[in-house]
Amino acid sequence: MVRSRFLARLECLREQFDAAGQDGLLISDPANVRYLTGFSGSFCRLVIGPVGVFLVTDRRYAESAPEEPPVYDLVVASGARYIEAEREAILLSGSRRLGFEPGAISWWELRALEACLSRRSRLLAAGGQVEELRRIKDDLEIAAIRSAVAATEMALTHVLAVAEPGVAERELAAILAADLRRHSDGPPAFEPLVSSGPRTAILHARPSARRMEAGDLLLVDAGATASGLAADMCRTIVVGDPQDGLQARAFAAVREALDAAIAAARPGDPASQVEDAARRVLESHGYPLRHDVGHGVGLDVHESPRLAQDSTEVLAPGMVLAIEPGLYVAGWGGVRLEELVLVTAQGACRLTHLPVSLNVAAG
Amino acid sequence: MVRSRFLARLECLREQFDAAGQDGLLISDPANVRYLTGFSGSFCRLVIGPVGVFLVTDRRYAESAPEEPPVYDLVVASGARYIEAEREAILLSGSRRLGFEPGAISWWELRALEACLSRRSRLLAAGGQVEELRRIKDDLEIAAIRSAVAATEMALTHVLAVAEPGVAERELAAILAADLRRHSDGPPAFEPLVSSGPRTAILHARPSARRMEAGDLLLVDAGATASGLAADMCRTIVVGDPQDGLQARAFAAVREALDAAIAAARPGDPASQVEDAARRVLESHGYPLRHDVGHGVGLDVHESPRLAQDSTEVLAPGMVLAIEPGLYVAGWGGVRLEELVLVTAQGACRLTHLPVSLNVAAG
Repeated sequence: MVRSRFLARLECLREQFDAAGQDGLLISDPANVRYLTGFSGSFCRLVIGPVGVFLVTDRRYAESAPEEPPVYDLVVASGARYIEAEREAILLSGSRRLGFEPGAISWWELRALEACLSRRSRLLAAGGQVEELRRIKDDLEIAAIRSAVAATEMALTHVLAVAEPGVAERELAAILAADLRRHSDGPPAFEPLVSSGPRTAILHARPSARRMEAGDLLLVDAGATASGLAADMCRTIVVGDPQDGLQARAFAAVREALDAAIAAARPGDPASQVEDAARRVLESHGYPLRHDVGHGVGLDVHESPRLAQDSTEVLAPGMVLAIEPGLYVAGWGGVRLEELVLVTAQGACRLTHLPVSLNVAAG
Repeated sequence: MVRSRFLARLECLREQFDAAGQDGLLISDPANVRYLTGFSGSFCRLVIGPVGVFLVTDRRYAESAPEEPPVYDLVVASGARYIEAEREAILLSGSRRLGFEPGAISWWELRALEACLSRRSRLLAAGGQVEELRRIKDDLEIAAIRSAVAATEMALTHVLAVAEPGVAERELAAILAADLRRHSDGPPAFEPLVSSGPRTAILHARPSARRMEAGDLLLVDAGATASGLAADMCRTIVVGDPQDGLQARAFAAVREALDAAIAAARPGDPASQVEDAARRVLESHGYPLRHDVGHGVGLDVHESPRLAQDSTEVLAPGMVLAIEPGLYVAGWGGVRLEELVLVTAQGACRLTHLPVSLNVAAG
């Protein structure tokens, strides 16, 4: 990511301050810090004020020299005393009416800052300002997500090809974890989910020692990152030949729901209609929709907008969405399919290329 | 982990309530929830009150049936409305003076709970109660950490053996990530660090595309988990034959500091003396100690006690400590060695078996 991009993002953010009665913002969410500065250490606070931009971090990260001059000045916290460093950054920033992220700062930290700032600077709840910017991806972000998708598809292709009877879910997860790293420049976006047989009916099944049997359903949900941006994809296949017509019918129902949901992701329309479209298809086949049908994807693998019935958001060009309808029958199994799409002025465009097929492994 | 163990932990926790003026505790830290209940989903809140114990989670995790009857009743939050579910759990628990974890709850969540509970239940800051229990490991936890160490050592042995000129740091990280999963029952405790050549001088270097050269230092810092409990180990080797006497001298200095620090980890003594011991050795060789020399390890890979000069904690039997002295010379490289030890009545006992040698790969 180039320096000018970060400066432009900071400028867009500052434009929101006046209307909100702020002259600065304290950012506690690490993904928001990364979005605005490129800094990706696990411990960080960013203070944006009238006089400058200051990053608080600890010694571990203070030395990883950035390739370009950073858009911030550094304030290094020593040991456990990071409140003092934050106070220093706030004073240096010149902010007297400092917004903070109410859902990302702990109760303790806010109280400690209030106590040590006394009447110099007032702290004001100001949530969602950076998240609002992050909903619409720019060309560099879309390019990074495309790279993450390419790495994810290489990993999924490999793991689905080696999924044979006798192989354990955990072994597939190990291969996935290695491939997701090998084909990209960062760690996986989340712990890969691998489940097989009746375990595919569990919504958030962790890979177990279970060994696959011929005719099992196999569900793999994984995503790589590239420059910090995530992919998120899911495929369900049969290990060997399909065992019964039910597998094929369930798969066809979910694929139909997926296609309908993608077709419904149109700019200017409510996010809730993507879920409506998937639900209608699944219900026409006699299945309920048991989780949100999707979500935005970016520096966080789950971010705004939510694609759910009670979502109040409106779709817009530049949003990247994971769409993931599924059906789950306790004791039998489940099928989930997940694709990444980019909302364009002309409608949703798939960022994924891997075939959606029940029979990959049989090939 | 067995049900009776969780019940015993809950009982120990409740014994602290009277003195703190509480009749209950709201737990927001996921590792604390796991410690008390075994529940390991990423979204959870636990409410312990006079009438019962209630776990708030979402639909994703509500269905992963536990192997034993859980020690809590479930309250399932629907969609984004988890504050309502928390309120319900608090009312069901019968608590009127409910402690909360000030560093683990967000400012927003506390305010939302205060607003919806009105005068029914009072919320009181009550930090560190579960962390206090977690500092001392029981036999089951120590057994799990031993398993995590065994998996880590298998992974390190493999990756140090294949570390040859031409191999990229990122490729080693991919092998590590796969092995750490393959030899254990969960994901790695943290993203493995792999750095080589001059990059070993960077304190928290992420694996890059850099390919190793003969005579390079190679630093690998990694840990598996077993039943959620972490290992944390680090080795530094030379790829091929040592290039100069400086590598051997730096390695010897760090190994001497490691041995001195382990010898200083005696029950009843201040945690700070472990760091003092390492610092004295390094300074006698002309190097500074540039980060804390260690930390407790358990469900979190960094937990209490801190082994640092300004630590006020006292060592006690049952603590598991990662001890990790290192030295770093910008432009040349760094050496860090990290071992896990158990504090016993007789002193620190290593939980690790992998040789500490600069020449593993040359062997």
